[in-house]
Amino acid sequence: MSTAYEELVQELQQIATLESCGSVLGWEQETYMPPGGAELRSEQLSLIAGLCHSRSTSPRIGELIDAALAELGDDSTSDRAVNVREARRNYVRACKLPDQLVREISRVTSLGQQMWSRARKQNDFPAFAPWLQQIIELKREQARCLLREGQTLYDALLDEYEPEVSSASIQATFAPLKESLVALVRQIAQAKSRPDRSLLQREFPKAGQQAFSRLAAEKIGFDFERGRIDESAHPFCSGFGPGDCRLTTRYNEREFNMAFFGTLHEAGHGMYEQGLNPDAFGLGMGRAVSLGIHESQSRMWENLVGRSYSFWQYFFPLAQQTFASSLGDVTLDQFYRAINIVEPSLIRVEADEVTYNLHIMLRFELEQLLMNGDLNAVDVPGVWNERFEAYFGMVPPDDARGCMQDVHWSAGLIGYFPTYALGNLFASQFYSKAVQDCGGFQDDFVKGDFSKLKNWLRSNIHSRGQQYLAADLVKVVTGSPLDSEPLLTHLETKFTDVYRIG
Amino acid sequence: MSTAYEELVQELQQIATLESCGSVLGWEQETYMPPGGAELRSEQLSLIAGLCHSRSTSPRIGELIDAALAELGDDSTSDRAVNVREARRNYVRACKLPDQLVREISRVTSLGQQMWSRARKQNDFPAFAPWLQQIIELKREQARCLLREGQTLYDALLDEYEPEVSSASIQATFAPLKESLVALVRQIAQAKSRPDRSLLQREFPKAGQQAFSRLAAEKIGFDFERGRIDESAHPFCSGFGPGDCRLTTRYNEREFNMAFFGTLHEAGHGMYEQGLNPDAFGLGMGRAVSLGIHESQSRMWENLVGRSYSFWQYFFPLAQQTFASSLGDVTLDQFYRAINIVEPSLIRVEADEVTYNLHIMLRFELEQLLMNGDLNAVDVPGVWNERFEAYFGMVPPDDARGCMQDVHWSAGLIGYFPTYALGNLFASQFYSKAVQDCGGFQDDFVKGDFSKLKNWLRSNIHSRGQQYLAADLVKVVTGSPLDSEPLLTHLETKFTDVYRIG
Repeated sequence: MSTAYEELVQELQQIATLESCGSVLGWEQETYMPPGGAELRSEQLSLIAGLCHSRSTSPRIGELIDAALAELGDDSTSDRAVNVREARRNYVRACKLPDQLVREISRVTSLGQQMWSRARKQNDFPAFAPWLQQIIELKREQARCLLREGQTLYDALLDEYEPEVSSASIQATFAPLKESLVALVRQIAQAKSRPDRSLLQREFPKAGQQAFSRLAAEKIGFDFERGRIDESAHPFCSGFGPGDCRLTTRYNEREFNMAFFGTLHEAGHGMYEQGLNPDAFGLGMGRAVSLGIHESQSRMWENLVGRSYSFWQYFFPLAQQTFASSLGDVTLDQFYRAINIVEPSLIRVEADEVTYNLHIMLRFELEQLLMNGDLNAVDVPGVWNERFEAYFGMVPPDDARGCMQDVHWSAGLIGYFPTYALGNLFASQFYSKAVQDCGGFQDDFVKGDFSKLKNWLRSNIHSRGQQYLAADLVKVVTGSPLDSEPLLTHLETKFTDVYRIG
Repeated sequence: MSTAYEELVQELQQIATLESCGSVLGWEQETYMPPGGAELRSEQLSLIAGLCHSRSTSPRIGELIDAALAELGDDSTSDRAVNVREARRNYVRACKLPDQLVREISRVTSLGQQMWSRARKQNDFPAFAPWLQQIIELKREQARCLLREGQTLYDALLDEYEPEVSSASIQATFAPLKESLVALVRQIAQAKSRPDRSLLQREFPKAGQQAFSRLAAEKIGFDFERGRIDESAHPFCSGFGPGDCRLTTRYNEREFNMAFFGTLHEAGHGMYEQGLNPDAFGLGMGRAVSLGIHESQSRMWENLVGRSYSFWQYFFPLAQQTFASSLGDVTLDQFYRAINIVEPSLIRVEADEVTYNLHIMLRFELEQLLMNGDLNAVDVPGVWNERFEAYFGMVPPDDARGCMQDVHWSAGLIGYFPTYALGNLFASQFYSKAVQDCGGFQDDFVKGDFSKLKNWLRSNIHSRGQQYLAADLVKVVTGSPLDSEPLLTHLETKFTDVYRIG
């Protein structure tokens, strides 16, 4: 006789397997699918989403959760207890959504992504606007279903990505951060010593970029036996499940940063996925805490490691070998300063460490307007451009490099962006603790050894699954609540050096 | 109020959509999946197969079929009637198989293919043998479930690929064909004028092969907006559904034939898939008749078109441009003779038009022994090599180029091989009728125009779906029952010319 807990686990793991079929289909849609496949793919994704949802909300799951809770008794902290608690959170949430809505959101966002991709290529926002409007309306409907007391519609969506966090608390974190960042950007803008960006805009042949960025991903610890990297219009990481995690990136032969730091970023996500307990697939103990914590992993490897001096002490000679004609005459110092240029720029995913969060704040504002009903899809370009100018002192030359640059809204991912900025905060706070715990990493990094940090992350974060909410995990790991001080200290220390300020 | 027929269609199309998710997963397993993904993938495929099977066998489908039959009344020939008839055939068949067995076959064959791929690379048959044995036992169990009166176990499997055909009838077709083929091979072996194979074994860079074979596939009519081509260990075609059909091939830089004719072959399959009525997705009117008819399409484009002189009158100058250093000094006549060399060889998929069927006959014999219980997996290499020598006068140097060369058995596809030889017979019979109906194709082919043949196939075969059984379709289209005379006439005419005999 198996216990209710065991039955629950079996059922949840089957649902997770079915969901992972949807992940493969979604990944393939972005990497290889021919244009003619769009319609069938949206039907497939919608069908899988519907099946997952109806199984996730079957009364049997509710009964098993209740029975498993009874089996647990006083235990609220064991792995089992975590799994049941998280199963319950998901069950309660899922039961609020009608099957029909789930299938419809899946179908429309699958097509929406195709439409976005085409419209972006042709810089044709009006072609995308009706799709965006339809998605916004579906997400508002979803939010109304999920709404808990004291939440805004936006909060209800945010909760899916960052459990138990409200837009007000994010706003409270963002406001002072914004001030400090704007001050730092201004200080940097006035610095006399300017790095030379042009050396990153020489010829970087695609084959070399592929090999070099793959090497770096492998060196920091992404396991290519259990994953791979492909190309897509918008880089992403998709952990299908145990043993299979996919990264994507994109290449520009006249630009070094995009593919390289994009790959490090996605590899950071991928290492989190690869570090989850495979036996707990589909359960709380085998899932990432939140998107913010996920992003802390990608941003840590991309920026705190990948844009550090000691990282390049090891990798720069290899880069010079790979791109001899472009980097042969460049010094490590010039290169290090160039990859750390701080400047207002158009594209979020290519933004530097300092201005990045401002891109997020802009999107956070617009998303709230869209959800409150204060902004319609057709008016997005106008409001985007106006606020972009206020933040960055320039207007995007077109919507492709403006409000259409990101895949998220077309994929229905509203409430997702702020987790990126939270990720930066988490990353710095974790990293400064890791440095302290491990007595620094520089001596290892210069030798191309990243195992100490990876192991620290494995035991402090990855292997813990959803044992704690993000806010509690930060406290458990670092001893303090979420704090923007480590990020600001890091940025100020680093960039006064890079820009020879003060 | 919708009719029972309409409800049935809706349900069948949902099942087809779910099955098509399995097709994507299966395709990805063979093209891009990293090694670590094997276990999860087999779970995914098994889950999808189980879901499809349990939906396909739900009593509701049975009720809808009965009600739809009642709605049809006397009508037994309309498209609706065909769809209901084929739904019934599949339903009756599916209901004979327990869910558990379907899931188990899916799981074991997904892993089996991984094991086969690894074992073949390492030429390690003993590592594969236990998997093969397990698959054979599962297939015997499946055959026992499906068995109808008067069938052998092997017939019960064959019926899935070539409905209503028995191994005895295939044997009756194969026996005289074998005699004639062996006589022709002997005659060719004695010919004094020998084509020069070496010119196809010069340098053919992969990029050139990719571009050239893709061009040819496009020219004959495969639509790359609704499909694509990738690499896999074993070439195949997978029609996911309307708008999305995938081909695979493989490249050898010292061999022209493999990728090129492999691509034409798979493109022939693909054009059948692309020619099916998209509105009848998941229904009899939107499905291929049988594997034999499917193979008639691939073999027609590969051999009857792709190895014809007029085809190369158009393509050879392009081949010379693409592979200037290897083909610059070759004449069209030398090239044409080289791609039509007839010689006993090890690998089925690379075999010439004359010896190809002998490869099939060998497999057909072994499969029957395996199903009858007269042969165990461990003994396959011995029996394979012995019979191979009897057929071809040589012994394979290793199992990788012997009994492990094909993916089929590892994928549970037992009873599949004979449909390849049937495909050759169907192809010649259809083609000679198409030539007659259209007044010959040579004048068009030399101009690179293949539309007449494609259109003839569209209207005579593709668009008809499963309106007729294979045996009836041949009669309807050509006016005669299946006959090996067109194939033998084609081979004798062509090869007495190629080998300057008589």
